[in-house]
Amino acid sequence: MKRTLLAAAALMAFAGVASAQSSVNIGGILDVAARSVSNPGGALKTLSPDGLQTSRFIVRGVEDIGGGMRASFWLEGAVSVDSGGGASGGAPGATGGGHTWQRRSTVSLSGSFGEIRLGRDYTSTFWTHVLFDPFNLAGVANQANLMTSTKMATPVNSGGTTLLRANNMIGYFLPGNLGGIYGQFNVAAGEGVTGNKYIGGRLGYAKGPLNVAFAYGVTDKTGTMTDDMKAWNLGGSYDLGFMRVLGQYHNYSSGGRTLKNAMLGAVVPVGASSFKASYSRSGDFRAATQLGLGYQYDLSKRTALYTTYSRVKNKAGADFTASGSGRAIAATGAGSTGFTSTGYEAGVRHSF
Amino acid sequence: MKRTLLAAAALMAFAGVASAQSSVNIGGILDVAARSVSNPGGALKTLSPDGLQTSRFIVRGVEDIGGGMRASFWLEGAVSVDSGGGASGGAPGATGGGHTWQRRSTVSLSGSFGEIRLGRDYTSTFWTHVLFDPFNLAGVANQANLMTSTKMATPVNSGGTTLLRANNMIGYFLPGNLGGIYGQFNVAAGEGVTGNKYIGGRLGYAKGPLNVAFAYGVTDKTGTMTDDMKAWNLGGSYDLGFMRVLGQYHNYSSGGRTLKNAMLGAVVPVGASSFKASYSRSGDFRAATQLGLGYQYDLSKRTALYTTYSRVKNKAGADFTASGSGRAIAATGAGSTGFTSTGYEAGVRHSF
Amino acid sequence: MKRTLLAAAALMAFAGVASAQSSVNIGGILDVAARSVSNPGGALKTLSPDGLQTSRFIVRGVEDIGGGMRASFWLEGAVSVDSGGGASGGAPGATGGGHTWQRRSTVSLSGSFGEIRLGRDYTSTFWTHVLFDPFNLAGVANQANLMTSTKMATPVNSGGTTLLRANNMIGYFLPGNLGGIYGQFNVAAGEGVTGNKYIGGRLGYAKGPLNVAFAYGVTDKTGTMTDDMKAWNLGGSYDLGFMRVLGQYHNYSSGGRTLKNAMLGAVVPVGASSFKASYSRSGDFRAATQLGLGYQYDLSKRTALYTTYSRVKNKAGADFTASGSGRAIAATGAGSTGFTSTGYEAGVRHSF
Repeated sequence: MKRTLLAAAALMAFAGVASAQSSVNIGGILDVAARSVSNPGGALKTLSPDGLQTSRFIVRGVEDIGGGMRASFWLEGAVSVDSGGGASGGAPGATGGGHTWQRRSTVSLSGSFGEIRLGRDYTSTFWTHVLFDPFNLAGVANQANLMTSTKMATPVNSGGTTLLRANNMIGYFLPGNLGGIYGQFNVAAGEGVTGNKYIGGRLGYAKGPLNVAFAYGVTDKTGTMTDDMKAWNLGGSYDLGFMRVLGQYHNYSSGGRTLKNAMLGAVVPVGASSFKASYSRSGDFRAATQLGLGYQYDLSKRTALYTTYSRVKNKAGADFTASGSGRAIAATGAGSTGFTSTGYEAGVRHSF
Repeated sequence: MKRTLLAAAALMAFAGVASAQSSVNIGGILDVAARSVSNPGGALKTLSPDGLQTSRFIVRGVEDIGGGMRASFWLEGAVSVDSGGGASGGAPGATGGGHTWQRRSTVSLSGSFGEIRLGRDYTSTFWTHVLFDPFNLAGVANQANLMTSTKMATPVNSGGTTLLRANNMIGYFLPGNLGGIYGQFNVAAGEGVTGNKYIGGRLGYAKGPLNVAFAYGVTDKTGTMTDDMKAWNLGGSYDLGFMRVLGQYHNYSSGGRTLKNAMLGAVVPVGASSFKASYSRSGDFRAATQLGLGYQYDLSKRTALYTTYSRVKNKAGADFTASGSGRAIAATGAGSTGFTSTGYEAGVRHSF
Repeated sequence: MKRTLLAAAALMAFAGVASAQSSVNIGGILDVAARSVSNPGGALKTLSPDGLQTSRFIVRGVEDIGGGMRASFWLEGAVSVDSGGGASGGAPGATGGGHTWQRRSTVSLSGSFGEIRLGRDYTSTFWTHVLFDPFNLAGVANQANLMTSTKMATPVNSGGTTLLRANNMIGYFLPGNLGGIYGQFNVAAGEGVTGNKYIGGRLGYAKGPLNVAFAYGVTDKTGTMTDDMKAWNLGGSYDLGFMRVLGQYHNYSSGGRTLKNAMLGAVVPVGASSFKASYSRSGDFRAATQLGLGYQYDLSKRTALYTTYSRVKNKAGADFTASGSGRAIAATGAGSTGFTSTGYEAGVRHSF
């Protein structure tokens, strides 16, 4: 929930002047959990951010410029609640130093034609990861746990900077009145920087209980990259009323290698409670599976308590862990026979 | 003074909707002074931040979640007014690069049981330093001037990261209705980082003119630390009407060595003016004394002019200086016979 | 346009309390453009910030402290819309990591005597650059393109940190009621840092269609500097109604060398459109000229579309480019015979 700092409204109530179209909103999410992750080499207890949703600080606004047109801006940066730091927003777990606007910094013009958006933004291929994951791509049962590996040099790492977001992006978004069809198209200027150049699109359909989307993107070979990285994915959810089922499939390929990841999940709401589960599989030649179980209790629309359990099983040679976005424990002792990593956390998410 | 950006209020006045419980507050303190510090090696004139109070930028809010419960958040970072930089909040004088939320970043749940607070926060043993110092632990007469020394490798430095604040903290605070008794208890996860693991508590009593508090904390031996650091302190103040007297005592020990610091102070308000004095003594084997004299004139509740003088006398081997949180001048020429460091500043503090 | 988050107004409308003098304002400018810069070595296409105006995020406020006096503060940092980073504010094109308040962080007391301002602020000699440039010292036709050169070690670079702003500054500004006369005087404490110590002043006259200003400043020889840097400049504009003409002249000298830059420009408003042109010349021994042409269309007072063209002609030995504040392309291939650099961009500027 974003608080609308409606200057115009305040002034109007006060002095009968100003226009109602202008507003600056300040909002965000702060999420922090007590977490324990166990690998063969040992266990690490942490207070970590982002168990249920990724923490963020947002300043945004919309201007009505007439003729059905709007200009708007969006500045959003990460917040590491455990340390007071910001995070790059690029790499999961990066809790660098200062505050940035690297989660999103965009200026948009929108109207009946849709929206044109300029700046740093999410790539088209990112959205499937988070929107069709019962765990919101956060915490120990994060669907992306099966994508972050020290042994997986290619293909995903080769397009690292465009996995979630890209700098220098021009985006076009379809208008909202197409009978359930939605979509976007993105181009990011490479500016001569390795792994920066991206082109991608996304098309989806959301009506009634159904929501499905397909996305495709290419990160251009630049600098030290030896081959383009091609990514496509498919995600969907269906609301049965008593339960929402979700699924997603990803295919990342580069240099003759392919990473295939799949996930099935479900969310069962019971009053203010939600029960969640997901099962993920990495189809890389270094394969692993992840089971996630979660419980969420909404104290209000803005504030929730939650607890999550996750178990990652690695086949020989793989080293995926259930570390989420907190401080990681190295999977030492991960030999040639595979190993299991388990994560557990309990926390609170507050949005403002 | 924090400005309440009461979106709810604005909307209610405007359109008769929304609830009154939600708010985001933006506030802070900006404090800057012309300062001169003289050591045997020379004098340094600076424009320095934080002569009367530490500069900060705060975003915070409270949500009423019903049943007498509240959820709240607090994001606070340092501001180096002289350079436009942020500061780590950990080390005095660190004016690093960018803005952070390292002064405090917490999420809380509170009710009749008290408050549970998660994130980066002040340690229990910190509060005595600032609350019972006429100079608010800031400026050239800062009580902590006698704690920062290049020659004092142990015991204080050994627990450096927990002296003021700690990452990864879980805190419990007593409710406010215990007849004057207040207190808190804190545990910080070490996460395998040297000097990060902390456990501490604080108990106080404030009623009428009296306020006293005792705190104890242990920074666990980790990584390169060879011994735990134990800290305890006692502080108090009594308001005689025409004058408020204050005092504090600190005992930091580690590896067989102990640092004992004591301070006595007074504040005499006369209309919009306040006259202040403090005398501090470091009982470390490298001992020093500090005399602080100050005058503050309140232009309003939010804005004050002030001037402060400080004189630090070092015995042989000690190198404490009156440098406060500004750019430091090295105490070159500090030989085996001891030396005197003097500081003087005049500035303005504005809170918003 | 800054949004006034008038807490006082909101509260007054809501509950009839609080005073009307207090306010915190949040505002800024976000500007981003698709840009292409061509040098002999090649062309670089970028999405770059700051084509029409420099992007920024501002928090500021004013307090009426009675007796005609006001206390105020101003925190302003750069925003790299293309990457979500902040910028140092010192060097054009620096898109460093995190958000800072390095564009300006000041506390002021003002009244009928004028204004006293403390903190990091613009130097007196900066203002001529931006106020009398049709392109606002931004984008590919930025007047300062002829000042940034890898081959121009002195004199400008020798006073680099004070070219735009200075840390540790005490400033005095004349009051606004002197019949059109305006001015300021600034002193920045060096604090022993090379190139940090500055003293300067500015005097101007603005009445009816006329605005002229003269500024002079000295950056003291410190540390590795071998000589003081002296700067003076003169700027003016005259509004003919159908057209505004502008001009500026700069003289930077240090160590026996002098850089002389001159610019003539014009802005022709036609309804919501503005046509702009400027011609600049660097009188350094490594000389160059720049021609800038621009078109701006105001969608509203806050939002504008624009496009700009620029051509820099270098004589033998010079390497000035039309790179503005975006990612630069090296002028490889710039031989002994001189070369031409061209820039083109189209973008949007949104203020809030």
